[in-house]
Amino acid sequence: MTHRYDAGLGKRESNYVALSPLSFLRRAAEVFPDRAAIRYRGDEQSWAATYERCVRLADALRKRGVGHGDTVAVLCPNTPPAVELSFGVAMTGAVLNMMNTRLDPAALAFMLDHGEADVFMVDQGLSAVGLDAMGRAEAAPLLIALEDEALGPAESFGALTYEELVAEGDQGAAWSLPGDEWDAIALNYTSGTTGNPKGVVYHHRGAYLNALGNAMAWDLTHHPVYLWTLPLFHCNGWCFPWTIAAVAGTNVCLRGVDASEILAAIQGEGVTHMCGAPIVLNMVTTEAERRGEQLGRTVRLMTAGAAPPAAVLERSGRIGFDVTHTYGLTECYGPNTVCAWHPEWSDLPVEEQAALKARQGVSYVVQEELTVLDPETMEPVPPDGETIGEVMMRGNVLMKGYLKNPTATEAAFEGGYFHTGDLAVMHPDGYIEIRDRSKDIIISGGENISSIEVEGVLYRHPAVSAAAVVAKHDDHWGETPCAFVELREGVGVTEAEIIEFCRENLAGFKTPKTVVFCELPKTSTGKIQKFVLRERVKELV
Amino acid sequence: MTHRYDAGLGKRESNYVALSPLSFLRRAAEVFPDRAAIRYRGDEQSWAATYERCVRLADALRKRGVGHGDTVAVLCPNTPPAVELSFGVAMTGAVLNMMNTRLDPAALAFMLDHGEADVFMVDQGLSAVGLDAMGRAEAAPLLIALEDEALGPAESFGALTYEELVAEGDQGAAWSLPGDEWDAIALNYTSGTTGNPKGVVYHHRGAYLNALGNAMAWDLTHHPVYLWTLPLFHCNGWCFPWTIAAVAGTNVCLRGVDASEILAAIQGEGVTHMCGAPIVLNMVTTEAERRGEQLGRTVRLMTAGAAPPAAVLERSGRIGFDVTHTYGLTECYGPNTVCAWHPEWSDLPVEEQAALKARQGVSYVVQEELTVLDPETMEPVPPDGETIGEVMMRGNVLMKGYLKNPTATEAAFEGGYFHTGDLAVMHPDGYIEIRDRSKDIIISGGENISSIEVEGVLYRHPAVSAAAVVAKHDDHWGETPCAFVELREGVGVTEAEIIEFCRENLAGFKTPKTVVFCELPKTSTGKIQKFVLRERVKELV
Repeated sequence: MTHRYDAGLGKRESNYVALSPLSFLRRAAEVFPDRAAIRYRGDEQSWAATYERCVRLADALRKRGVGHGDTVAVLCPNTPPAVELSFGVAMTGAVLNMMNTRLDPAALAFMLDHGEADVFMVDQGLSAVGLDAMGRAEAAPLLIALEDEALGPAESFGALTYEELVAEGDQGAAWSLPGDEWDAIALNYTSGTTGNPKGVVYHHRGAYLNALGNAMAWDLTHHPVYLWTLPLFHCNGWCFPWTIAAVAGTNVCLRGVDASEILAAIQGEGVTHMCGAPIVLNMVTTEAERRGEQLGRTVRLMTAGAAPPAAVLERSGRIGFDVTHTYGLTECYGPNTVCAWHPEWSDLPVEEQAALKARQGVSYVVQEELTVLDPETMEPVPPDGETIGEVMMRGNVLMKGYLKNPTATEAAFEGGYFHTGDLAVMHPDGYIEIRDRSKDIIISGGENISSIEVEGVLYRHPAVSAAAVVAKHDDHWGETPCAFVELREGVGVTEAEIIEFCRENLAGFKTPKTVVFCELPKTSTGKIQKFVLRERVKELV
Repeated sequence: MTHRYDAGLGKRESNYVALSPLSFLRRAAEVFPDRAAIRYRGDEQSWAATYERCVRLADALRKRGVGHGDTVAVLCPNTPPAVELSFGVAMTGAVLNMMNTRLDPAALAFMLDHGEADVFMVDQGLSAVGLDAMGRAEAAPLLIALEDEALGPAESFGALTYEELVAEGDQGAAWSLPGDEWDAIALNYTSGTTGNPKGVVYHHRGAYLNALGNAMAWDLTHHPVYLWTLPLFHCNGWCFPWTIAAVAGTNVCLRGVDASEILAAIQGEGVTHMCGAPIVLNMVTTEAERRGEQLGRTVRLMTAGAAPPAAVLERSGRIGFDVTHTYGLTECYGPNTVCAWHPEWSDLPVEEQAALKARQGVSYVVQEELTVLDPETMEPVPPDGETIGEVMMRGNVLMKGYLKNPTATEAAFEGGYFHTGDLAVMHPDGYIEIRDRSKDIIISGGENISSIEVEGVLYRHPAVSAAAVVAKHDDHWGETPCAFVELREGVGVTEAEIIEFCRENLAGFKTPKTVVFCELPKTSTGKIQKFVLRERVKELV
C-alpha cells in the first residue's frame, strides 16, 4: 500500500527537473543579461550574448547530426570558445571531451578513437598536433578550426571554422535540459597507472552540485572576476565555467600561463579569483616581487593537491593572495575536498598556518563522505595523523565510471567507496593529509604523469634492462619525473640519449628530467622497491 | 542497446547518495565541532553537541516506535528544540510538522488528526492551547512537554519531557539518510481558500536544494550569526535551520518577537543575518531610533512578500540594516524567488531603489522557472510591467503536493506548473512584481489569513446575511482583515459584537479589526465584487 506521504505525491514535470549546470547559464542570461560573461584581449561578451551564442552553437551542432550521447572532442587553450563549449555541447545532449593540450598526437588519437569523437575542434595554434592526431586516429570526426585573432591569420584547416559553425545555428532554437540528470555531460581522460588513459564520465547532477560546491567552499559571492589560469581541460576547469555562471561572474580568458600576462590581467581586469597549481602562485608572486608591485586587491587563489610552503604563502599573502587549498581527482570533478579554514587559525604563526593549510581537509558541503581506510580491511584508520591508509570517498560528486572500461570502473568503486589511490593520514580533527600516491602519479606543473607510462617507454629502449620512475622535488614544477635505470650488461648509453628517446615517445612534460644509472633495489621476489628510490631521490641535487 | 555512456555506468552506493539537509548537520559537526550552533539566553551549544543531541533524539523517537513516514507535530516558539527537531525527526525517517503557535485549538486539532500525528511536542508556554487541541483531536499522539527555564518551573504535562526523551537515546546510535531523496521531510499547513488548511509536504531533495539556494541568494559566507526572528513554523523557518548548518553558522534563538529583545540580541550576540516580515524591520528600526542607537554592524535582513517602503528602507539602512527582498509560498519551501540586486542599482536615488526592491524578482539559482501566465491560456503575459497574469513556477523547490488532498494537488500543478494564486506583472527585465492575490489572502504581521475562512465565521452569525473580508492597510501589521457586512432585515448588531463573535471562533490575528455595515456591491449574477470593496477600504481612516 502506498504510504500517505507518497500517495498521489510523485514527481511531476512541475516539481522535478533534472539538475544540470545548463540552468545556471540560462539564469545568468535572464537575470544579468548585460554583465560581462567573458573578457578576452580587450573584448567583452555579455551573459545574454554568451547564452545566445551557446544556443546557436547547440543548434548548429544538432543540424550537423550531433545529439544525445555523441562526443565532441576539443583541443584548445583557455579561450572564449572553451567557455561556450562547456554549455553549448551539453545543450545538444552530447558529451564534451576537453583534451589536454600538452599531450602528444598518439595520445590524442587514442582519445579520439576511444571516445568515438563525432566532432573534433582544434585551436589554430594547435593545428599541427591536432591534424597529426586526426591522421593517426581511425575515427573520422568533423574537424572544426577554432580561430584566434591573437595568433594572426590562420592557415585554413578543417571542414569549417567555429564561427562559421555558430553562424549556422538559430538564436531562437529550442534546447532542453537532459532527460535524466544522470546523463553524461563530459568525458575527461586521466593518466592511468597502466598503458592507456581512462575516460572519466561526468553526469549533469554531479556537475550541477560541484558547481555549487565550489561556490560554498570558496565563500563565493555574486559577480567574481575569475581569471582562467587553470586549464579548462582539467576536469572541465574544476567545474568553474558552471560555478561562474551560477554566480553571474566574469570569465577572463588567457591563452597561456605567463606570469607577466597573469599579473597584467589581475591588475587590469579587476580579477578577484583564480585557480591553479602552486606553481602559478609562485610564478606570479615572483614576478610581482621582481617589479615591486602589489595585486591591487585581495585575489583568492584556489590550489589543489599540494599546498604551497609557508614561505610562498607568506610572500604571496604580502602582495595580496589569499590561498584556499583543495583536493580532488579527475574522477571527482576536480576538487571535492577543501581544507576548510577555521577563522581562529588566522591568528597562528605563519608556519603553523602553512602546516594546517597543507592538509587536504574535509568534504565539500555537496559531497558526502571522505575517509581514510585500510584498503585490505576497508576499516577506517585511527585518526592519529600517523597511520596511513587510502583516501576513499562516497557521494554525489563522483564520476559515473570509466568509459568502456568495466574492469577499471568496478575496481575504482569496489566495496562501496571510490578508491582514490592516494595514501593519507586522518588527523584527530577529521582533516586528511596526503602522504603518498599509491598509483605512482607524478604531478609536474599541475599535470599528472603516470610513472608506469614513462617506465613503459624506458623498457622499450634496447639498452634498458629495468627501470623505475619516481617524483623528484622541483622548485619550479613541484615535481619532475626522475628515472632510475638498470642497463643490460655490456651496453653503454648516456643520460641525454635516454631523455631524447623518451621525448620522442612521450609528451614533453612526461619526459624524465633526470636519469640515474644504477642497480635497482628489489625485494626477494624481484619487485622493485620504489620506496627506496623515493628516499634516494631526496639526496640528489 | 545501452548507450556507451550508460553501459555499466549506473548509480551505485558510492556515487549516488540521497540529497538531504541532514548531511549538512553531520558535516558541520565533523568540520566545526566546537563552533556555536545554538545560543539561547546566555547558553551556547556547539555543533558537535547539537549533532549528538539530534542523534539521541532520533534514537529515542525510534525506540518509541517513530519511523519512516510517521508524523511528529511540534508547537513551540523559536527555542533550541525547534532547531534540533529540524534534524532529529528526519533522522528517523519521520516527518516534522511545525505548527503555527498563533492558531486556535480547533485548527491545531484538525492538523493533529489530518496529519495523523504520532507524537505531539508542546512548549510549556503553550500547554493550555496544546492540551485543548489534544482534547479536541481524535488522534492520540504521544504528548511531550518542551520545558523552558525562561518560563520558570512548569506545571507537569504530557507523558514525558523533551529532555527526558533525549536522555532515552544513545549518542552512538546509527541513523541513515532517507532511502529516497523524494521522501517526505516536513509537513506545513497553509491557510487554504476553502475551509480546512492544506498540508504541504516537503521532500528531502527540495529541502537540501533550497537550503543551498538561500545561501546563494543571500551571498551567505561561512559562520553567519543568524537571529531567529522568523518563526520556525513558517515553512521550516524558510529552510534556514538547514542553511545555517550548511555554512556552520550560529542560530540565536528567541522566544518572542520583541523589538527591545531583538535589538539587544543584535548588539550583544554579533548577529549578522535575520529574516522576517517587514513589520520586524520597522519595529526594530523604530526602537533603535528611539534609543538613538545603531546596530553596530551591517545586519542583513531577508524579508518576503512585500518589500518595505522607501522611507523604512532609508531609516533602517541608516542604523545598519541591508534588506534583501524575496518571495515564496509555503508550497515552495519559503522563498524561492529573490529580487536579485544589480550592483549598479545602489547608485540610484533611494526612491528608485525602493521601487526596484519592491519587486519580487527572479528564481533562486536552485529553482528553474518563474513566469507569469494567463491562467486561462497558459500563455506568458507580455513583459510590459502592466499586463497582469498568475505567477507560476516549475522546478526542484516545490512541494510533493498536499497531504491526502489529490484534488487540491492536481489543481495546484495543473498544466505542468505550480499555480501560486498570486497575480503579478512581468517587467521588461524579467523581474516579476505581485499586484494582487487571487486567493484572497490577507497578510497580517507576516501571517496569512484566508478571507474566506473569516467570511465563513461571519456567515454563521445570525444577524449576517452576506459578508466579504478584504485587506485593510495598517501601518503596524501591514494589513488587517476588514469585514463588510450586510445584515438581515430588521436585525441590529454592533461592530463590537461582530468582532467579539469572530474572536470566539477564530485565532486572534484573524479577527477583523474593522467592520463596515453596508449593502454589498454585487454582479448581475449576485457575486460579490471584492474589487469594489478593495477600493472602498482605501477611503476608510
